[in-house]
Amino acid sequence: MEKRLVAFTVADKFGKFTEQWQPKIIGEINDSHVKIARVQGEFIWHRHEKEDELFYLVKGSLEIHLRDQDPLVLNEGDMTIIPKGVEHKPVANSEAWIMMIEPKTTTNTGNRADSERTVAQPERL
Amino acid sequence: MEKRLVAFTVADKFGKFTEQWQPKIIGEINDSHVKIARVQGEFIWHRHEKEDELFYLVKGSLEIHLRDQDPLVLNEGDMTIIPKGVEHKPVANSEAWIMMIEPKTTTNTGNRADSERTVAQPERL
Repeated sequence: MEKRLVAFTVADKFGKFTEQWQPKIIGEINDSHVKIARVQGEFIWHRHEKEDELFYLVKGSLEIHLRDQDPLVLNEGDMTIIPKGVEHKPVANSEAWIMMIEPKTTTNTGNRADSERTVAQPERL
Repeated sequence: MEKRLVAFTVADKFGKFTEQWQPKIIGEINDSHVKIARVQGEFIWHRHEKEDELFYLVKGSLEIHLRDQDPLVLNEGDMTIIPKGVEHKPVANSEAWIMMIEPKTTTNTGNRADSERTVAQPERL
């Protein structure tokens, strides 16, 4: 084995930063990254052309607004998968802690890479 | 949008079955499946030649034994990623609920597909 493997508590990783809407990489699995982020307020509408995106709520509550149906509401321990091509807008009324799994090619703003909200090179924790 | 999207509580999915060591598919993300399983006792040593495997503990406690280091111990809210090629043996002293993310090509027994523990076609929940 090349390097020592570790297990960790996902929630503990949120203690390592305080900024919001700045995804951090906490793991790699095949062609995907496992990322976490603190989020609060409204994000921008965007879609990922080629990549499905998994959301899992570690703490708090998150709405994911969609164009053609009522918003999804996720609380702690809830998950959803937003398929590629589907426009969505995350909204958190108070700070939520989210875990995401998505291809390494995925950026947080998808087709809106021109946005000031884009984080092209997420930090690794 | 082709079909209505849903969010769900991962723990609730465990109410839909009782059998142990029988992974169930609860989601698809790109080339991977999200699976859950109830596990208790010792599994077999195996490795996945080409696929990293993410473990996340929804409930209980799980040891993942490794050949070259002490076992990883995961409790509720903990995760680890077992890289491709690394032999491992999950052990749960009492029933644990686990979520796994792994390529669709991954079977539960990896290189030990001849095992009676193999589940070639996991059920979808």
